Parts: sequence; C-alpha cells; structure tokens
Amino acid sequence: MPSLRDVLDEIVAEMAGYSDRGAVASYIPQLGKIDPNKFGIAVTLTNGEVLVAGDADEPFSIQSISKVFTLALALGRVGDTLWKRVGREPSGTPFNSIVQLEREEGIPRNPFINAGAIVVSDVLLAGHQPREAIGEIVSFVRSLADDDTIVVDGDVAGSERVTGYRNFALANYLKGFGNLNHAPELTLGVYFHHCAIAMNCQQLANAGRFLANAGRVPSSGHTVISSERAKRINALMLTCGHYDGSGEFAFRVGIPGKSGVGGGILAIVPGVASIAVWSPGLNARGNSMLGSIALEQLTKRMNWSIFSPKPA
Amino acid sequence: MPSLRDVLDEIVAEMAGYSDRGAVASYIPQLGKIDPNKFGIAVTLTNGEVLVAGDADEPFSIQSISKVFTLALALGRVGDTLWKRVGREPSGTPFNSIVQLEREEGIPRNPFINAGAIVVSDVLLAGHQPREAIGEIVSFVRSLADDDTIVVDGDVAGSERVTGYRNFALANYLKGFGNLNHAPELTLGVYFHHCAIAMNCQQLANAGRFLANAGRVPSSGHTVISSERAKRINALMLTCGHYDGSGEFAFRVGIPGKSGVGGGILAIVPGVASIAVWSPGLNARGNSMLGSIALEQLTKRMNWSIFSPKPA
Amino acid sequence: MPSLRDVLDEIVAEMAGYSDRGAVASYIPQLGKIDPNKFGIAVTLTNGEVLVAGDADEPFSIQSISKVFTLALALGRVGDTLWKRVGREPSGTPFNSIVQLEREEGIPRNPFINAGAIVVSDVLLAGHQPREAIGEIVSFVRSLADDDTIVVDGDVAGSERVTGYRNFALANYLKGFGNLNHAPELTLGVYFHHCAIAMNCQQLANAGRFLANAGRVPSSGHTVISSERAKRINALMLTCGHYDGSGEFAFRVGIPGKSGVGGGILAIVPGVASIAVWSPGLNARGNSMLGSIALEQLTKRMNWSIFSPKPA
Amino acid sequence: MPSLRDVLDEIVAEMAGYSDRGAVASYIPQLGKIDPNKFGIAVTLTNGEVLVAGDADEPFSIQSISKVFTLALALGRVGDTLWKRVGREPSGTPFNSIVQLEREEGIPRNPFINAGAIVVSDVLLAGHQPREAIGEIVSFVRSLADDDTIVVDGDVAGSERVTGYRNFALANYLKGFGNLNHAPELTLGVYFHHCAIAMNCQQLANAGRFLANAGRVPSSGHTVISSERAKRINALMLTCGHYDGSGEFAFRVGIPGKSGVGGGILAIVPGVASIAVWSPGLNARGNSMLGSIALEQLTKRMNWSIFSPKPA
Repeated sequence: MPSLRDVLDEIVAEMAGYSDRGAVASYIPQLGKIDPNKFGIAVTLTNGEVLVAGDADEPFSIQSISKVFTLALALGRVGDTLWKRVGREPSGTPFNSIVQLEREEGIPRNPFINAGAIVVSDVLLAGHQPREAIGEIVSFVRSLADDDTIVVDGDVAGSERVTGYRNFALANYLKGFGNLNHAPELTLGVYFHHCAIAMNCQQLANAGRFLANAGRVPSSGHTVISSERAKRINALMLTCGHYDGSGEFAFRVGIPGKSGVGGGILAIVPGVASIAVWSPGLNARGNSMLGSIALEQLTKRMNWSIFSPKPA
Repeated sequence: MPSLRDVLDEIVAEMAGYSDRGAVASYIPQLGKIDPNKFGIAVTLTNGEVLVAGDADEPFSIQSISKVFTLALALGRVGDTLWKRVGREPSGTPFNSIVQLEREEGIPRNPFINAGAIVVSDVLLAGHQPREAIGEIVSFVRSLADDDTIVVDGDVAGSERVTGYRNFALANYLKGFGNLNHAPELTLGVYFHHCAIAMNCQQLANAGRFLANAGRVPSSGHTVISSERAKRINALMLTCGHYDGSGEFAFRVGIPGKSGVGGGILAIVPGVASIAVWSPGLNARGNSMLGSIALEQLTKRMNWSIFSPKPA
Repeated sequence: MPSLRDVLDEIVAEMAGYSDRGAVASYIPQLGKIDPNKFGIAVTLTNGEVLVAGDADEPFSIQSISKVFTLALALGRVGDTLWKRVGREPSGTPFNSIVQLEREEGIPRNPFINAGAIVVSDVLLAGHQPREAIGEIVSFVRSLADDDTIVVDGDVAGSERVTGYRNFALANYLKGFGNLNHAPELTLGVYFHHCAIAMNCQQLANAGRFLANAGRVPSSGHTVISSERAKRINALMLTCGHYDGSGEFAFRVGIPGKSGVGGGILAIVPGVASIAVWSPGLNARGNSMLGSIALEQLTKRMNWSIFSPKPA
Repeated sequence: MPSLRDVLDEIVAEMAGYSDRGAVASYIPQLGKIDPNKFGIAVTLTNGEVLVAGDADEPFSIQSISKVFTLALALGRVGDTLWKRVGREPSGTPFNSIVQLEREEGIPRNPFINAGAIVVSDVLLAGHQPREAIGEIVSFVRSLADDDTIVVDGDVAGSERVTGYRNFALANYLKGFGNLNHAPELTLGVYFHHCAIAMNCQQLANAGRFLANAGRVPSSGHTVISSERAKRINALMLTCGHYDGSGEFAFRVGIPGKSGVGGGILAIVPGVASIAVWSPGLNARGNSMLGSIALEQLTKRMNWSIFSPKPA
C-alpha cells in the first residue's frame, strides 16, 4: 500500500495537468467568478491525522454538501418521522427536476435532491425564525468541524435568492401538495443560506469525520448521531449523493459522497477517513469533474472502495 | 460479535413468526404456485466455510438474480464497450418501465432492469444460436457454484415466453432504437431461459463467492473477473440491484444485493461472505419481503454493512 | 328544427332533475361556498337576439374563461410574436401540470392551460403596473359585453393569491426558463385578478359575441380582432379549451368552448351564437358537469355542431 | 368567392414553387423511394362534383389515413363499447410514443395514434382470420370510394412488418395490459396491411365523402354510419388527426383531417366537401408539409374553416 501522503501529492500533480476541467456553475452569478484552476483535497483519518494538498485552505461554497449536515440535524430533531415527508430512493432525474414531484404527489425521492433538501430545511425551521434556524445549522457545522470561523457567504446567499426561480417553483409545488409547513420564501431563506456556507477542504473533511466514525467526532468523542444513523446517511450518500450521476460515482469511486455545484465533494470511507475535495469545474451531471477523478484515483490506490475486500 | 451460526438460526426462527409475508409473484404462472411459507438462507464465507439454515436446499427460480451472472459473462466477452449500450444509473422507475427508454432513446439505465438485461442477453447471443448461448450461461453459473446439477427450469422458461408481453415490448422497443442486434424472440429466448435457472440457496451463495473475493473463486483460486470489475459489479448491485427499492435496501441492509421475483436475493459482503436468501413473498417494490428483513437483521447483528466502520 | 326558446326551457327543466351534479371546486375557498343547484344559460345570437333561462342573471366567477379574453387582448398587443412564448397544441396533461413545462423547456403547450395563461398575463403586464393591466382587462371585457357593471371579485382574487401555490410554482418555473418578464408575484397578481372577474351568463354570452361574428361586436359593429384571428381563437378553444377533457367536449358537444372551475362555459357557434352556461359542479376533468351535458343537448337539438352538415 | 377550380389550379402552381418540401418518411423503406416533387389534390363535393389537380391520379400509401376507415368499421361492429378500450383525447406526445400507455395503463389516448389504431385492428380481427379481416377492410374502403381497383400494396405491408419494431413494442405492451385479444403478430398483420392500402387522391376524396355528408355516400345514398357518428369521427379527426400537430392543423387549416406518413391528408368540410391532398415530404410533426399548406390556402380562399361564420 502506498503512503497516503504520496498519493495525495501525486493526485494534485496529476490534476494540474488536466486541460478539460469542466464548466464552472454559472447559474449562481457568484459561483461563476471562481478560478477553474483551483484544486484542493483534505483527508481526516479517524485516528485524528489530517493530510492536505493543493488549495485545501481556500474557502468555497459548499452548496448541496450542506444537505448532509441538515439531514443529520433534522433526523436528530424529528427522527424517522422525517421519512414520511421524504423518500430514500435515487431519483433518476436531474437535481432540480419537478417531474418526479408531480408523479409522486409532493414527496421528494430523497433528501439530497433540491426538493427533498427544501423539506429538510422546512423541518429545521419549525419553531424558529429563519435567522435562528440558519444560526443553528451554522453552529452545528462549526461544532462538527471544531472550527468557529465557518460562516455563511452572504453574497452567495443573496445571489441564490435572486436567481433561484426553480427552487421557488419546487417550494411552491411542495406547498401545494401540503408538504411544506412554512411560507416558501421563509423555508427557502433557510435553504439558500445553508447552501451558501463557505468552508475550505480541511474544514469540510473535519466536519464529515463523524460519518466515518460511527456518528462520533473522534477528537472530542462527542456522539453526534447514533452509529445506525451514520450508517444510513452513508448509504443515502452512496445511492443519492451525486444526483443523476450517483450510479457512476459508486461505480468508479465506490464510497459514499455528496457533491455541490460549488465544485466540492465530501466523501466517506467508513472507519477510515473523511475526505473533502474541491475543483470548481463540473461535469455533465453537475458534479465536480476533477473532484470525481481525484477520488477515483484515491480510492483505487488506497484500496478504499467499500466494494472491495480489505486485507485482514 | 455473536456467532454466525446462532444468528442464522435466530433469523430462521424469527422469520417463521411473520404472518405478513408479501405476495408471491403471480404474473409468471409457475411462480404463483410456490408455498409462501418457505424460507431459506445460506452463507458462504470467503474462507470456504458454508452455513445454511431453513429451506436452503430447495431449488427456486433465480429470475433476475441471473442478471448478475450474465453481466459478469458479458463484460468478459466485450469488456467496457458494453457501457455504450447500457447505463450505470438507478432508474427511478419500476423494473419493467418503458418510459425511461423513450426518454433516453433506447439506452437502458442499467443492466439490472429488464431492458438492460435484455441488451446483455443480446451481447451473449452474438455468434451463437440461442441454445448455445443459454448453454454457456448455465455452464458459467455451474462453474461459479462448482455444481454441475444446476439447470434451467423449462416450465418456467416456457411460462415466461407465453406471458412476457412487456418484455417483448421492451425488446422490440430496443430493436426500434437499434440497440438489439438479434431478433427480439431470439434474444428473449436467451433472457427467459437464464431467468429460469433454478438454484437452491446453497448453490446460489456459492455462485456469488467470486464477487466477495475480488473476482476469484476461493475454493479453486480461479479468477472469474478482475478485482476491479468485481468491485464495480458490487457497486451496481448496491445502486441498482433492487429496482426502485435499491435505495431502501442500501439504507436498511447496507450491502450489494440483487433480487429476483422468485423471492431470492443474492447479497455480497466484500471480503467476507456471499449470502443467498429465499422467501417467495414480495414487497411492494417486487423484492422478497422476508428476504430483505432477514438480510437487514443479518448485517446488523454481524456488523456487515459496508457503510459501518469495522473493528481493526 | 325546434325553437331555441323551447330547447332552452327543456334543458333547464332536464338539468333540474340531475342528482349527480359533480363536485364544486374546493381548492379556492370562495368557490367552495357556491350552491351546486344553480344552473343558468344564455344565448346571444349574431342577429342581436338574447335568450336566457335558469339562473342566467346570477354572477359567478368566470375563472379560466377569462383566458379567452386575455388571449384576444394579448394578440392585439403583440400579434403573432406571442406564439414564440406559447404553443398551440393540446397538452395531454391536467390543467395545472408542470411536467410538460420541464420536457418542453418552459414553453407552455397552449394559452389555456395555467402556465400558458400566465405567460399571456405577463404579456399584458408589459409597460404597466399590475393594477393598470387588470384595469385594461376589465375594460376590455366590459366593452365586449357592453356592460360597465362587470367587476373583479376581490374576495376570490385574494383567495386565489393565498392558496395558489401551484400557480406560483408554474410562474417561478417559467421565470427559471426565461419565459416570464416580470416578477412572478406581479404577473400572478394580474392572472389571479382576471380569473376572479364575476359575470352572469347573459353578460358572458354577450362578451363572447365577437368570436361568433368574425371578430366584430354585432351590436356596435366594432371590430375587436380580425376574422382570421377570431377563427383561430375558436380553433384553440376547440382543441384546448377544456384541459384534458377537450377531446371529449369536441366529441360530444362539437363547438369551441372554454370552461372555468367556477362552473361556467363559454361556447361559440361560428356565425350563429355565443353561449354561456353555468352550473358549479365539476366533472373529473374539472369542467362543469351539467354545463357540458346542457351544451351537448343544445348543439344536438339545434344541429349546431360544427362537425355536422347544415341545411342549405 | 373565387371558383374552386381556379383555387385548385393556383394552389398546384404555388406548391410547385416550394423548394423546402419536408422530408420523405424513410423508416419504411418503400416510402423512402417516392419522388418528393409529387403533389396532387382532389375535392369531392357533396353534390357529387369531383375536381382534381396535379398528381391526383397517382396512387400513394395512405398509411394512417386508413385509421379513419377502420374506426368507422369498428364502431359499426362493436358500437360505443369501443371507447372502453380507447380514449378520445389528444395525446400530447408523438404518434408512436409508449409513455402515455404506461401512465394510463394500456388505454391509448385516441384511435388515431398507433396504439389506438392497433386496438381498433384488434376489434376488427375478432372472429376472423387476419386475411379475412384485411379483406373486409379493403372491401369497406372500396365501397366507400365506389372503386373496386383499390388494393393493399404488398411490398409496403411487408416492409412495415420487417421494420415495425416500435409497433410490435406497442402491441406487446397493450397485450401486457390486457388490451389486445389476439396475438400481437396477428393484430399487427391486420394493422400493417390496412396502413399499406394504396389510393390516389381522387379515390381517397371519394372514400371520405360519407364524413362530409352525415354518414351517407351521396352518390348511392347508402348510409355508412349514423349522422351522429359521422359528426363524432369528424371531431376526433380535428382534435387528434395530426398527432402532436393537431392543434396547429386546427389553428391554421380549421377543418377535420387525418394525415399519413405517406404524405396524404384526408380532410372534411362538413356538408360541403371531402378533400384528399398528397405531397410526400413531411414536416417536423410527421404530417405532409405541402399538404398542410395547401389545405390552409384552400380553406382560407374558400372560407371553408369550420371556425368561421358562413354567409347565409
């Protein structure tokens, strides 16, 4: 087995050589300005070790990766009753598709497509003002990463608010089916803000540790969620974490992961590591092009795929 | 950790107590006659040990489970060019849906939905008479299971031929899009026959060993497929192996698995075990109801989910 | 040929005998309060004669019938460039479906489904405040009916605003595809208000006269639209005027018509008559149940179907 | 009003000037060989007069136009019970779409899309051998046209049989839903043969006379169907006769019509005329490009649209 340090350095070097780096998301204006040549990666091992390479300390917009954290928080809040309002199946359609919602009468297929994550935001808004709910989400992410400097990028949040017509459509549609308890603009306020959380790879890898460690933050020993629930969130990330490219990600990379249109991916090797990778250019499915390739190389060289036997 | 022997015995006892056992598939007349009270399970460990419980030596129709074997065989035949004709994404629609085919112009979403498996059969038919292609598939399965008594149930194959109108529709539709090289009735002849292979749990668990063991049959050391390919088939089983219930199976059971409407499930714990379970009654998604529950209990008690950390 | 007077009286008598009168629309609270036993009909002949029967002088909410008037007004405003933003085909889906919009990238199938009518409202809003646009629509309808007492029912308009989530979804979706020039809430303000225009059968039949008379109001001789455009609006009413029940209406009634969920239908016999019928209970397709039956009887007894030969 | 003779001559002259004539259907090999420069038109007035122009005496494959005749024949055979197996609504999807069938569980939307016409063929096959059923259809068409020389083009029928995979898919799909009483290949044998009937414009216009004349053949006085049924078939032609271009045809041409991929259109002016036009090139919706334009010009110049007032 090669050393992880060497593998990360090799990957950073290889990624620098790619000329086709995908297209930076342009539908959120603030994201369109990011330099496509950025590439960073961070690995937090469950033994506490952290390795970084490339632009791992540069903050980016985590976007849909935040849905992993809001899901964990919402399950803590309402438990498995959440699943009355959201499904657990891959969608078979693009991330912002509304077709499935009509066919299945307002129940989003999973918590990682936009409609499902909006319902999760709605759960987190219960009994709160939007500002409070956003504050709780940020506090939760800070505690997971053990880093109080993590904040919402207000420009990005504002930018989504203005251009997020399809999300407004989804929220109103959910409301029309009775699957939204608050006014669409309030729930979307929460949604847009948690998507606009900015983190660098190191912070993000740290924030994901609990999923690699049966629900507990290794450094503090704090139990965030039960091991059962950690296992299940990992399963959802594997089957639904990359929108309509989830099958491909499982096929090539072979570990649970959640991508965001900011170009980040959070990936989990259960029992071993939490990984954050970032490269702003996206592939045709809306997932980080180089991020996916880098993770494929990493799991291959380290034999980290959950679909491979491990040496005893 | 409890002993596997005890766990299997407990599970058989628990399953006997279920009164709601799902509905036996009735659309294939021969399957509709099976006693819904049957329940069997077999586990073949990669160290060669085999444990069985319940009706593990009673043959049943493996149906769609055969698609795992034909996929492995076809990949051996044509390699990754197969993926030009079949996708690798969960479908988001029922197993026999034709809607997705129209939207995606004749490319089935994955090799485990009917349309995808029909394309795989078409690959295996190349250069052969149907009878030869069927013979090769049966030989392949026999060699995997190291058991020359495995045969096609001719009654079941004939039964599918007569009633398989939706499969004829799919095959003709594929042909209309140019994604079938042979006459629909010839390709379906192969498809119906491999679906009608009869095996008992012990044979099926043995046949799946290579997937738990990086592509090699542990007993003989014979390499069936590369470790890379075994890993990827496992990933496909996880994301697509239970039709539109694949997300739920991953969420609850947490290991790669492929179900059949005969009530069987083949499941893989990479590096550890190949499992076959059989109970004829199906749940709403068309997967064995008690089989799914039994596997959920088994992976939970043995900590076999691939989404959980393993003790060092 | 029987006398129209007799036929109308017979129809009113027959309709009184129906116990199954359909279901009053409940999704707009104000509409849910209407007495389902109401039935009215008015016929304005192109020769100026007006015949009424039943509750023909009781105002009701014209709802989607208003889309005929806004279409005529918008065509006057922007001409055939409207058809770049809206199609002219039956939708094959329910009136408030969003599926078609996704498939056809934001171009509604026709101006009578909700999405299409929202685009028409958007056209009428150009260069105006919503209040002004609403004022122009009401003025136009008053001039068509030659009746200055016609007004918007503010309670109904407010009621739609609060509960119209699916329409908000549609408007945001259109906006996301770039097919809405104004803010969704402004365009919907116009839309909800014109749907909330209240008219009685007599007023409505008068307002429709120009469509039966090659675009000219017979009483005043005023040309509202060209005869070519009147012909084409009639064609659209025939193919698309009853949502996913348009084929059935053409099959049974055989004249252009536009229904509203308030239970009204405006129907046109080109060259002969403009007809308004009202009965609040709706059939499964969302069209007035008794209104449809009454019109079927009327066209049959008067030989008014456009699909039948006329005596020389 | 100009003379019909002059109008037809003008139209033929104008059509000769078109360089963009659409694309000749290529999916049926025999049709792909037709000269795209052909153009013919024939008008049979209800008074018995027949006017022809252009290539009106050259036979072409009537294809889907035959569905009008099989519908009339099937309604005569089983009456309105036919409507339990076929709907009466425009489909909103292409002519050979299978999507709608899945959503609506095997009930085709109307008798003019392929699936619906296959069900109609299945009705006509009841109690017959395919050869007999085909014979009855041809006899019926001959009697309508009063011309015993009309035959099925065997080459075209054979050609469809070989390449008609999507129709085989539709037939098997219908069978899977229990909406086909005979073996798919038998029903399709009937279907392919009636689609392969060859007629020239003059014969076709004659064959359609009964629809313009309240169900009676004017020359013989023979009642083919009731006036009620003729009216309703006309309505279906208007709403569903041009596949997913029916709305456009109603909008531009304004009379009932049924097109075929051979480039023919049969159109009806109730009480006035039966019209057959032929030009092999098709527009994007699969309807004769010049045929549609010619009919638009004809109805405009003769004021034949059913959506326009007629002078007293």
